[in-house]
Amino acid sequence: MIYYSDYLELDKVLSAQHPESDKAGQPAHDEMLFIITHQTFELWFKQVLFEMRSVIALFHRDYVPEADVFLALSRLRRTNRIMEHLAEQFTLIETMTPGDFMEFRAFLNPASGFQSVQWRVLERTLGLREERRVLRAYTDALAEQHRAELDAATAGTTLFDAIERWLGAMPFMESGDFTFWQAYRSAVAAMFEHDRDEVRTLAAAEGHDPSEALAQIDANEAGFDAIFSEPQYTDLQSRGLRRMSRNASLAALFISAYRHEPLLQAPYQVLDAIIELDRLVSLWRYRHTMMVSRMIGMRVGTGGSSGHDYLMQTTVRQRIFDDLTSLSSFLVPSAVVPALPADIARRLQFVNEARG
Amino acid sequence: MIYYSDYLELDKVLSAQHPESDKAGQPAHDEMLFIITHQTFELWFKQVLFEMRSVIALFHRDYVPEADVFLALSRLRRTNRIMEHLAEQFTLIETMTPGDFMEFRAFLNPASGFQSVQWRVLERTLGLREERRVLRAYTDALAEQHRAELDAATAGTTLFDAIERWLGAMPFMESGDFTFWQAYRSAVAAMFEHDRDEVRTLAAAEGHDPSEALAQIDANEAGFDAIFSEPQYTDLQSRGLRRMSRNASLAALFISAYRHEPLLQAPYQVLDAIIELDRLVSLWRYRHTMMVSRMIGMRVGTGGSSGHDYLMQTTVRQRIFDDLTSLSSFLVPSAVVPALPADIARRLQFVNEARG
Amino acid sequence: MIYYSDYLELDKVLSAQHPESDKAGQPAHDEMLFIITHQTFELWFKQVLFEMRSVIALFHRDYVPEADVFLALSRLRRTNRIMEHLAEQFTLIETMTPGDFMEFRAFLNPASGFQSVQWRVLERTLGLREERRVLRAYTDALAEQHRAELDAATAGTTLFDAIERWLGAMPFMESGDFTFWQAYRSAVAAMFEHDRDEVRTLAAAEGHDPSEALAQIDANEAGFDAIFSEPQYTDLQSRGLRRMSRNASLAALFISAYRHEPLLQAPYQVLDAIIELDRLVSLWRYRHTMMVSRMIGMRVGTGGSSGHDYLMQTTVRQRIFDDLTSLSSFLVPSAVVPALPADIARRLQFVNEARG
Amino acid sequence: MIYYSDYLELDKVLSAQHPESDKAGQPAHDEMLFIITHQTFELWFKQVLFEMRSVIALFHRDYVPEADVFLALSRLRRTNRIMEHLAEQFTLIETMTPGDFMEFRAFLNPASGFQSVQWRVLERTLGLREERRVLRAYTDALAEQHRAELDAATAGTTLFDAIERWLGAMPFMESGDFTFWQAYRSAVAAMFEHDRDEVRTLAAAEGHDPSEALAQIDANEAGFDAIFSEPQYTDLQSRGLRRMSRNASLAALFISAYRHEPLLQAPYQVLDAIIELDRLVSLWRYRHTMMVSRMIGMRVGTGGSSGHDYLMQTTVRQRIFDDLTSLSSFLVPSAVVPALPADIARRLQFVNEARG
Repeated sequence: MIYYSDYLELDKVLSAQHPESDKAGQPAHDEMLFIITHQTFELWFKQVLFEMRSVIALFHRDYVPEADVFLALSRLRRTNRIMEHLAEQFTLIETMTPGDFMEFRAFLNPASGFQSVQWRVLERTLGLREERRVLRAYTDALAEQHRAELDAATAGTTLFDAIERWLGAMPFMESGDFTFWQAYRSAVAAMFEHDRDEVRTLAAAEGHDPSEALAQIDANEAGFDAIFSEPQYTDLQSRGLRRMSRNASLAALFISAYRHEPLLQAPYQVLDAIIELDRLVSLWRYRHTMMVSRMIGMRVGTGGSSGHDYLMQTTVRQRIFDDLTSLSSFLVPSAVVPALPADIARRLQFVNEARG
Repeated sequence: MIYYSDYLELDKVLSAQHPESDKAGQPAHDEMLFIITHQTFELWFKQVLFEMRSVIALFHRDYVPEADVFLALSRLRRTNRIMEHLAEQFTLIETMTPGDFMEFRAFLNPASGFQSVQWRVLERTLGLREERRVLRAYTDALAEQHRAELDAATAGTTLFDAIERWLGAMPFMESGDFTFWQAYRSAVAAMFEHDRDEVRTLAAAEGHDPSEALAQIDANEAGFDAIFSEPQYTDLQSRGLRRMSRNASLAALFISAYRHEPLLQAPYQVLDAIIELDRLVSLWRYRHTMMVSRMIGMRVGTGGSSGHDYLMQTTVRQRIFDDLTSLSSFLVPSAVVPALPADIARRLQFVNEARG
Repeated sequence: MIYYSDYLELDKVLSAQHPESDKAGQPAHDEMLFIITHQTFELWFKQVLFEMRSVIALFHRDYVPEADVFLALSRLRRTNRIMEHLAEQFTLIETMTPGDFMEFRAFLNPASGFQSVQWRVLERTLGLREERRVLRAYTDALAEQHRAELDAATAGTTLFDAIERWLGAMPFMESGDFTFWQAYRSAVAAMFEHDRDEVRTLAAAEGHDPSEALAQIDANEAGFDAIFSEPQYTDLQSRGLRRMSRNASLAALFISAYRHEPLLQAPYQVLDAIIELDRLVSLWRYRHTMMVSRMIGMRVGTGGSSGHDYLMQTTVRQRIFDDLTSLSSFLVPSAVVPALPADIARRLQFVNEARG
Repeated sequence: MIYYSDYLELDKVLSAQHPESDKAGQPAHDEMLFIITHQTFELWFKQVLFEMRSVIALFHRDYVPEADVFLALSRLRRTNRIMEHLAEQFTLIETMTPGDFMEFRAFLNPASGFQSVQWRVLERTLGLREERRVLRAYTDALAEQHRAELDAATAGTTLFDAIERWLGAMPFMESGDFTFWQAYRSAVAAMFEHDRDEVRTLAAAEGHDPSEALAQIDANEAGFDAIFSEPQYTDLQSRGLRRMSRNASLAALFISAYRHEPLLQAPYQVLDAIIELDRLVSLWRYRHTMMVSRMIGMRVGTGGSSGHDYLMQTTVRQRIFDDLTSLSSFLVPSAVVPALPADIARRLQFVNEARG
């Protein structure tokens, strides 16, 4: 016999709110809101971690069955809606004014800032590299036990690793004398050549100098070398501007180019959901930073430094999946995309639809 | 030394998730979402109850200082944003499909339905009368201990009672030979008389029969008797169509009519926030009903009855503050509203602005 | 050379706001909000209709390629997010109080209510049957030209029709001596028989009377006849409690039961997206009804009738895809679902994964 | 006789969607979404501008009646909810994938980026100084006619100017030998002195060195000089770290310190609403930047520069009301705030409550 209240362990959950201002004999009404907001954040972080670990497990295998790509997609989308909801949740804590916060802020000292172990675990689980983190101080502020928990919880595969592995193992990119990236490169070159012809024809007809327009086309084409040229890619990696392996990046480009093939539809949505997740993690940080700056001000000290700017830098720089977001730069209209060899095209269909 | 994790009692909060499907050895991934969704609902219900009790305490006094009206308004508005957030939270549980739910639904038996004690406490605290509740069965399904808790928690003043008392004690409605509702009634009568003149003049000029238009005006005017005529008001009360005292209703109309006077601005926003709260409680029920019907279907039995329709009836009928919402029917344009006597007008100002 | 402002035809869009209160020489500040809210509603309705027509075209064919099911799914999901956004948009118009509305309400006479042609077109395009509509008066209030437009715009296939056709043509449901619904019925019967055995064993061991529990199981099993028994299904159809053909309903049940097979994943999400769309159309109406009742009150006339209750009935009854929502009643845990014959199972895979 | 469709000028609004991809004979389904999203943005920008101009008019007077402060507050809050809704609206355009965008992106050339005149007008109307804008290129890309419109539309008073003027004219800050900021400074000094005593007592009892803790207190106290010391304030202004006059800043601090006095409640909410507006304008830019970077990628050229980082810098730096947000740094608990002289306290009450 399951009973709602027992099932949800409400005796524990609902007895865990003890405002410090009450203990100090100076009850501040708004401290309850502060506590409940953070507790619900933590509960949802637990859910997000639960989903992320299942997604990593689904992708981190030698072979990922197609059914599981779709399953992982559902869980990524759920995670995204949770993250949206959590970003929105700052609206609730913002019904507390800085003046109201001041009434109990001193009682929380020195728990200033945000010492959530789960959030740190989440960042690392997604694949944030510690060295990129501007505010190492956050981790340093954790209790030893929690730092150990953090390390233990994040010793395994990250979402970044799992996705890179899955992409890197993508078949379908070669067949006979077809190699996807070379065919794509040729098509892109032909597109730009066509653009140059048009510019020259127009310039001749109208009698003006085409050199500026041609230079622009050259620059655009050169931009594609960032992914086509292996040395350039390696160089970008060494400078920290690329992180994912070139193979994995090319597989992501392949998926984007042929996203309407039945077997690539879910993978394309997966890439898009991961880009969205990266954005929503950033959005959560952004909202958090804005909330903090409103609550405690952006004290402009004699040195002129600003905590707000510092925090905001963190928000801006800590993207994990830039490699995927930046792929849009290498897309071309579907009319330009080279046709797939018949055998590859066939293997991207369902049995009941495939011909030949 | 306060430490984030201790302060939030995360050891309790984050160790309270034990899926039944795990215990049964048939882990269903989505049960975690089910648990966390309900736990966060309960945490926010605690917050909403906390705010509501403070609002009741602010209003349930012989005299409510103006500063406290504004304070209560802030808390009502906070509550409304929380309720909006909670209605939106159904979007998260709806990322679970009925098929996914089926994988662990049987393990929850017979905790079907929604046995939240806090929600029942909240309904009663706002002022929902048990006799109006269609689904008494919900309360009957509670454990004896919880039924006792429910009764104890709701033995005091309800928000409805507190607001009715506050409105009923509104001064400013009489002064010398000015009585607000009689002056308002005369103004309304003059407005309709003016409308009749226009209809008659137009009919004479165009040579058509004014009787239909005049009958419509008569009907509109008669509608105002629902609040102006004491016997009619009493009759509506006896039939359950009015609940609030006539005095309180007239005070609410007074506030609405003179809402731009400095002292009435916050009270008008309070009335509006309560109407919104009523709507948001209804919205929460509506979203809940829709979620349930999607999850367990709307089984159309051989008898043709439908659980969905039944639940939806509940949603529709359980409004608490109809008396306030329906006041809009008695508003008139500000040009029609009678001027206030000078002494009343003066008492509605701030000291630094008042003249005379 | 495309220029932002020309491309968006902003000269037309931004010059279409002319408050009636301005024309009357009694400018009411909030009328602008009223106009812009309704204009943005209408723009988004245009978008929703555009998406719906494309979804209908994708499904209303003799054969729907699998790639197009996924494409339709993307557009249904977009539509749902738009509808969510529009329901939320009522929050903006609700920043106007009933008192503010009263300042210009009279100038809009008799454009009371909601005479949106596009909304009517949308309802019909989704498949709402006019005879079910409680408020035919809405349609009657349209100008003749708009009634003609409404009829012309909705002469074609509805979303309901297209989905019913697509489901009705579902292959895979029979093979050799396997017939899905009969195999499913047998599995359900075995499940209930197993439940009965457990009840009897427990009753014997504990020495109590099993008849009540057995009667409950019988009732549950009988509920399944609503879909298994053809005469019963036909009877429900004749009483208006079922609308979709039994074949289409069984196909939807098939998709739900085998939703993890690669080829059925997108179709299952399509069914779920349509249930959500139905819910969101209902939510929009619900929010609209609540907004109207706040703005113009719920005048309780001498007859005691209430416009609010009347409108709310409409909201409750006007679901279009009840047939799909109610399917949850017929789901069983995946362990109970009968195995598919090998040849069907194979045809639900991708070429690159299929064996045999 | 007003008719819905005529009133809303739907013939204009709904006939203003002409996708370029259609004109080019290569219809791209998602261009309609692109157009409608931008048109609804523009309609809401018109509404926001309408509200902002009315708020500026209310504040930009020699004397602002208290009733109008509340009225302005309502309009600021409405604006904030609209801005929230608009930030959320990016979710809709984000249902379009970068691949879908690529299908019509070329047809929009060179209308890349965001050439909204109204957004520029809005930025300037709020008080953004052109010299602070990182991307002057946006303005340069406007047609001459629109640049002229922009200049004409923003020749008047900005929200920043109006608020600064209103704050600067705040009475109540001096009376007899009471000067608010000096009394506040003394109270702050006493608070820090009390802190030092505690540190010294504790250090003596526990036998450790108090110098580090005392140095921290000194630093905290020194931080307050940024507002108390006129030379320091002037220095911060000259370095662009303060913009608002010191008088206006002190008035804002006064309002915050005595926010529970009846007459200061609405002004405090006004300051808070403006801080929120600033945040929401920033949030809109943030969401816009994220959307652009997803759609067109963050091309990492050979130079290693990134358009995304550049845009994000803009988002970070373009706050308008930093002066108000940073005031939180100077708040102290209400127990520390000095009592007001009786005559000032009295003038902050309503007539019906004031004594003496």
